[in-house]
Amino acid sequence: MQFDEFYMQLALNEAWKYQGLTYPNPAVGAVMVENGKLLSIAAHQKAGTSHAEVLALIAAYETLSGEKIEFDPLNSEESHDFLLKLPPKFFASCTIYVTLEPCAHHGKTPSCASLLSRLKLQRVVIATCDPIKGHDGGMNLLQNVTFGILREKAEILLEPFKIWQKRAFVLFKLAQTSNGRIGGGYLSSKASLSHVHQLRERCDILFIGGNTVREDRPTLDCRFTEGNAPNVKIYSHTSDFDSEIPLFKVQDRKVEITDDLSFLDQPSFVLVEGGEGMLQSLQKKIDWLLIYQTPKLSTNALSYNIEMNLDFLHTERMGVDMMIWSKQVGY
Amino acid sequence: MQFDEFYMQLALNEAWKYQGLTYPNPAVGAVMVENGKLLSIAAHQKAGTSHAEVLALIAAYETLSGEKIEFDPLNSEESHDFLLKLPPKFFASCTIYVTLEPCAHHGKTPSCASLLSRLKLQRVVIATCDPIKGHDGGMNLLQNVTFGILREKAEILLEPFKIWQKRAFVLFKLAQTSNGRIGGGYLSSKASLSHVHQLRERCDILFIGGNTVREDRPTLDCRFTEGNAPNVKIYSHTSDFDSEIPLFKVQDRKVEITDDLSFLDQPSFVLVEGGEGMLQSLQKKIDWLLIYQTPKLSTNALSYNIEMNLDFLHTERMGVDMMIWSKQVGY
Ligand SMILES: [Zn+2]
Ligand SMILES: [Zn+2]
Repeated sequence: MQFDEFYMQLALNEAWKYQGLTYPNPAVGAVMVENGKLLSIAAHQKAGTSHAEVLALIAAYETLSGEKIEFDPLNSEESHDFLLKLPPKFFASCTIYVTLEPCAHHGKTPSCASLLSRLKLQRVVIATCDPIKGHDGGMNLLQNVTFGILREKAEILLEPFKIWQKRAFVLFKLAQTSNGRIGGGYLSSKASLSHVHQLRERCDILFIGGNTVREDRPTLDCRFTEGNAPNVKIYSHTSDFDSEIPLFKVQDRKVEITDDLSFLDQPSFVLVEGGEGMLQSLQKKIDWLLIYQTPKLSTNALSYNIEMNLDFLHTERMGVDMMIWSKQVGY
Repeated sequence: MQFDEFYMQLALNEAWKYQGLTYPNPAVGAVMVENGKLLSIAAHQKAGTSHAEVLALIAAYETLSGEKIEFDPLNSEESHDFLLKLPPKFFASCTIYVTLEPCAHHGKTPSCASLLSRLKLQRVVIATCDPIKGHDGGMNLLQNVTFGILREKAEILLEPFKIWQKRAFVLFKLAQTSNGRIGGGYLSSKASLSHVHQLRERCDILFIGGNTVREDRPTLDCRFTEGNAPNVKIYSHTSDFDSEIPLFKVQDRKVEITDDLSFLDQPSFVLVEGGEGMLQSLQKKIDWLLIYQTPKLSTNALSYNIEMNLDFLHTERMGVDMMIWSKQVGY
C-alpha cells in the first residue's frame, strides 16, 4: 500500500466537504498519523476559524491523551495557545498530512508553519504549495518535509481559490432528478437545501435568471442555516418584476437587475441559480457545475438542450441526494 | 474518531468495487490493522479465488514483513498454506475488519473462520452475519469477536447475494449523460465499458429489449475483457429479427426471443441492457439500477418518461465516468 497517498487522500476527501464554504480561504484538509496509526482527520471549515492543521492537531491530542479539550477548537487563538503549551515532544513521533503548504502569514495567532515547526513533528507531508505570491514560504520554516503527494488532486481542490483571487469564480448550481429533469422542486433532501443555503451565505453575489424569478417567485434567503441572505443580481434585459416577489423583501440585501456581465471580472465568488435558460446564456462563463442529484427518475416535461463537456471532480452524499462537483472543460 | 467504523467503512468501500463481479459469491471486504496501524485493504474479487480475509492477511504479511510473496494471492489454496506456515504469533497483535461473517464451510481449503481462529488474531470485527442457513456458525469458531459495526451498510452491500439465492437479481444498466440523455454512444470511458463487459461475463443472462436489438444491432460480447459472451434473452413479442445482427453470430452463446418473464423466478443474476422502452416495461421487476454517468450535458433528443424512486447506494469513479449504484424503492 502507498500509505502517504492513502492518508493524503483522506485529507483531500475531508477538505472537499467544505469546498466553497471556506471562501475567501481555500479548502484545506489535514490528517495526523503516529507510527502509521491514524489519529485524526480534519478540514478548514470557515474563514476566521482554525485552519485544518490546527483542528487536526487538536483532535490528535484528544486521541493520544484520551482527554477532551474544554474550548471550541474552531477558536484559532485558544487552539494555538493550547498546542504551544503542550510538553515539547508531545507530537514528536507524529506525521501530519496537509493538502496545502501551511500558511506563513503571522496574524493574530502564529502561522501554521511556525506552529508546526515549534511542535517538531517527525514529518510534514504536503500535497501542493500556496499559489499566492508572498504567502508562500511556509515550507521553508519546516523540517522533514515530503512534498508533492497527490499534488494534481490538491491543485483541483484549490482551483476555486486560485480563480477567485483574480476574477469571479462562477459556480452554477443545478438540482435535478437522476434522469436529468430540472425544476419542479426536485431538491428533495434537507441536507442539500442546507448546503445550498450555506453556499448562499458565503458567496458575494447570488446570480439568478430573470425567468426563474418571474416563474418561481423565490425568496433566496438562508433560512435553513439562519444566515444572512446574499445580495442578488437578476440577469434580465428589462426591469419589470413584480415587487411582491419575496426576494425583494428580504432585509439587509441588495438586489440589482442587470444584463451586464462585467461584474464577473471582479475577484469574487458568484453562485448562479437558475434553469435551462440561465445555463444556456451563461454557459461560457461557468467555471464549475454543482449538481444535486435526487434518487428518482421522473416524467417531468422540463428538459433542456445544451452541449457542455465536464470533468467530474468529486462526489459527496447529501442526505438521500448526491452532490456532484464538476468542472467545465474544452469550450 | 470512531476507528472501528472508519476501518469497516474502508472494507465496505473496497467490497463495492467488486459488486456483482463476485457472483454467485457475495461482495466482501476486509481490512487489517495492527495497534491502530493500517496494514491492508482487500476484497473478494471473483468466485473461485481467495476470499477477502485471505487477501487482507496476505497483504498484511507483506506490509509487516517488508517481503513480497512469490505466488498469486488469488490462489486460495496456496494462500491458506502459506498463512498456516507463518510463525504462530505472527498476527497476534492484529485486528481484522470483515464486512461479512467469515465462512465456516470447509472445502478444498480450510474455511476462513477456522483459518482466523488458528492465526489467533487479537480481534475479529464483523459487520453482519452470513444470511444462508447452514453457512452461518463461522463466528462461533472465533474468539474476541466484535459484531455489528456498520451492520446496515453491510446488509445493503449483501442485498444482491440475498436476492439471487431465491430468485433473479435484476440489475438494469443505464448509460447516460449528466443531464439524463441515453442512447447515442454516450458510454465514453473505457473503464466503464470494461466494467460492463465484466458484468456480462459474470451474469447468467443478459436481457435486452427487442427495439434496442433492431435499432442498435449490438454484439453484446465481452471483447474488452476477453471473456465468454453471456447467453442472451431478447424481450419481444415477435421473433422477426435480422439474423445478420452481430449478437446472433457470437460463438458459444444461446439466444432466446421471449415475452415470458417467468425465468426471473429462478435464482440467478440477470443483467438488463436497453433503452427507455425496456426501462418502462420492466420497471416493476428491476431491483437495482446501475447508472454510468458521463461528464457531459447534451442536446441529444432522446429523453424518456418514467417515474421511479431510488436509493443511492454507492458511487464509484470509472475512468472519467461515474458509476452510481441505486436501488428501486417504494413501488
Ligand atoms: Zn494556517
Ligand atoms: Zn471465506
